[in-house]
Amino acid sequence: MAYLNDHYLKLKAGYLFPEIARRVKSFCEQNPDAATRLIRCGIGDVTEPLPTAVIEAMHQAVDEMARRETFRGYGPEQGYEFLRHAIAQNDYRDYGIEIADDEIFVSDGSKCDTGNILDVLGRQNQVAISDPVYPVYVDTNVMAGHTGEADESGAYAGIVYLPCTPQNGFIPEPPKESVDVIYLCSPNNPTGAAATRVQLEGWVSYARANQSILLFDAAYEAYISSPTIPHSIYEIPGARDCAIEFRSCSKNGGFTGVRCAFTVVPKTLQASTGRGERKALHPLWLRRMATKFNGVSYIVQRGAEALYSPAGKKQVRALIEHYLGNSTVLIAGAKAAGLTVYGGVHAPYIWVQTPEGLSSWRAFDKILNEANVVITPGSGFGSKGEGYFRISAFNSRANAEEVARRLQGLRW
Amino acid sequence: MAYLNDHYLKLKAGYLFPEIARRVKSFCEQNPDAATRLIRCGIGDVTEPLPTAVIEAMHQAVDEMARRETFRGYGPEQGYEFLRHAIAQNDYRDYGIEIADDEIFVSDGSKCDTGNILDVLGRQNQVAISDPVYPVYVDTNVMAGHTGEADESGAYAGIVYLPCTPQNGFIPEPPKESVDVIYLCSPNNPTGAAATRVQLEGWVSYARANQSILLFDAAYEAYISSPTIPHSIYEIPGARDCAIEFRSCSKNGGFTGVRCAFTVVPKTLQASTGRGERKALHPLWLRRMATKFNGVSYIVQRGAEALYSPAGKKQVRALIEHYLGNSTVLIAGAKAAGLTVYGGVHAPYIWVQTPEGLSSWRAFDKILNEANVVITPGSGFGSKGEGYFRISAFNSRANAEEVARRLQGLRW
Repeated sequence: MAYLNDHYLKLKAGYLFPEIARRVKSFCEQNPDAATRLIRCGIGDVTEPLPTAVIEAMHQAVDEMARRETFRGYGPEQGYEFLRHAIAQNDYRDYGIEIADDEIFVSDGSKCDTGNILDVLGRQNQVAISDPVYPVYVDTNVMAGHTGEADESGAYAGIVYLPCTPQNGFIPEPPKESVDVIYLCSPNNPTGAAATRVQLEGWVSYARANQSILLFDAAYEAYISSPTIPHSIYEIPGARDCAIEFRSCSKNGGFTGVRCAFTVVPKTLQASTGRGERKALHPLWLRRMATKFNGVSYIVQRGAEALYSPAGKKQVRALIEHYLGNSTVLIAGAKAAGLTVYGGVHAPYIWVQTPEGLSSWRAFDKILNEANVVITPGSGFGSKGEGYFRISAFNSRANAEEVARRLQGLRW
Repeated sequence: MAYLNDHYLKLKAGYLFPEIARRVKSFCEQNPDAATRLIRCGIGDVTEPLPTAVIEAMHQAVDEMARRETFRGYGPEQGYEFLRHAIAQNDYRDYGIEIADDEIFVSDGSKCDTGNILDVLGRQNQVAISDPVYPVYVDTNVMAGHTGEADESGAYAGIVYLPCTPQNGFIPEPPKESVDVIYLCSPNNPTGAAATRVQLEGWVSYARANQSILLFDAAYEAYISSPTIPHSIYEIPGARDCAIEFRSCSKNGGFTGVRCAFTVVPKTLQASTGRGERKALHPLWLRRMATKFNGVSYIVQRGAEALYSPAGKKQVRALIEHYLGNSTVLIAGAKAAGLTVYGGVHAPYIWVQTPEGLSSWRAFDKILNEANVVITPGSGFGSKGEGYFRISAFNSRANAEEVARRLQGLRW
């Protein structure tokens, strides 16, 4: 008799974004008129077209696939050298950070990687996760059986939650106890908070002292607006021994529908066997990718490479500035509406306190019904997200301005 | 202290194909002259360019990504409806097989899916795997901790191996004991054997009687040359209740470098919770894909859709016939060389017995050194593959003819 994985049955409702999609669909069906004025600021999905440099590179790659002489079949599972080199050089070595080409693993998404990384880690690890944060970290730990059941607030037994609150500027401090694997997301999704150098030094120092591993999700690093805030965990001395970094082409290059990301696993990063022997994780991750993955589409990898060309870099910069411009408009609008607002400076997300102690989902329903704007309820990101909602700045300028106006029209 | 996944340390050497790549690289460096005449018949990688219909569709999709009005961000994690519909209609319903669009899950590769499917299955399942077979099934079970250590022949404790031998025509019979999850690959990689309807009926009947699940890998179904051999497990009545099917665009459409595949999980397929309650697997797989995957590149999905257009179908047919033509040439050559040959009729693989009781890797080294041809050692596919090697028919006709000639020049 075949058994299913019981741990899946512990998961709450649907994964956040499909759940939002279902509610929006139902609203639109019941309110066809309001549906025509709907503005989506929910899921963090880019809206602007791909950079021209990427379009040109992908057309050329498609043409290569049309001729026998230039056709490409299976590529290296960890990504083509041309892309791994471009990444290591432009994102790391150009900033004086020591990362080798073969420490870069190209993948089809950071969502996949942050989930899949658990494959190479032991089941006995004590996991700590920021709260609120991108829900994939928690959900994939639940699926892997690393937790007990959830309580009423949605918090799972067995996870050490690291509360992110206005009091700590939404950046968690290292816990008093020793934990083995820590998920950090900076700039943070959903709060928009970015960890300072001093805060990251604290985490690296904690991880080294406890032989822990930091899983550092830097998907939004391109939005950092201050030169003093680190873009990479590897800017902190010692991080090569204790951190894995996840980055994405989704939010800088607009690749949410194209699919390309990468993960950095330094060869100096070690973990312990059950018997206490220290071993490098790099060969395990390489083996995982070679066995359970077949590389990213050649066409997509050529597109991603173009993000690092001089033209591509300029076009990416323009995209970032467009979305951060929306952020500024939304922050001003939300503040003018009397709301308490965080984030939006180093990230394309505005983190807003719900007025009158309203629950996140009630705020979601009210904003959907009365302003015809889709936001994301904060509780979807963890129990400490209750009482907040996230507005995404991924939109046209006109839409951002309209949302700012509509927020001011709401009566709470 | 962070722990690694100890189960990875049980894995033998490298994954087969990277290991072959290493040996070939070393040979070429040491023999630069011979390297220029090297012909690769090792890894099952296509060599011919993509169908014109696919090229056109991908160019168009790239152009859509260049304009705001037609730009696509995140797609549905399970694949776009246009592609799921094309698949369900053309691969199933047109043949009278009842498969709904939302039972199709589009992914970036069957390798990924056959590995990832373990995520939704319980750890207590007794797993049975054909031997020899595509090594990913065994390796992913080792990684997931479903096995003990390997013995000298490479067989892992805890797996029920289903021997495929000349005596059973390389198609395994259901075992005497009750097993919970069974991997079948038909047409088989590496032996090229294809299961008959009666054989598959036997498996479906066994699975229903034991409430087992068949994991049916049909990546090579397009190569089936006889109208009496099923292309899909769902041609067998009752299979909807006990089988998951994996299919790929790699070997028909030549997508090894483009990356697209799909998995069929019927909504009627159930498995048991730890407490013995029967539940559908479909929502678990949907949840897995929504949480740990972000869909296949839009450009790639448009390319895959074009495989189902009238022009695309014709162009795919021409590709298959080209590779099967190579097969015929290789079979004739190997037979003329006095070798005992299997397969190659319903699959692009020729399965050859090593002469003189030579081991698979010794045959590999001899053929590499003396004929400058790369094949795949049979032992890489399981302990019952020892004493065989696989020749891939993915090549130009001229190369297939040259390999046939060189095989005849070898002195064993």
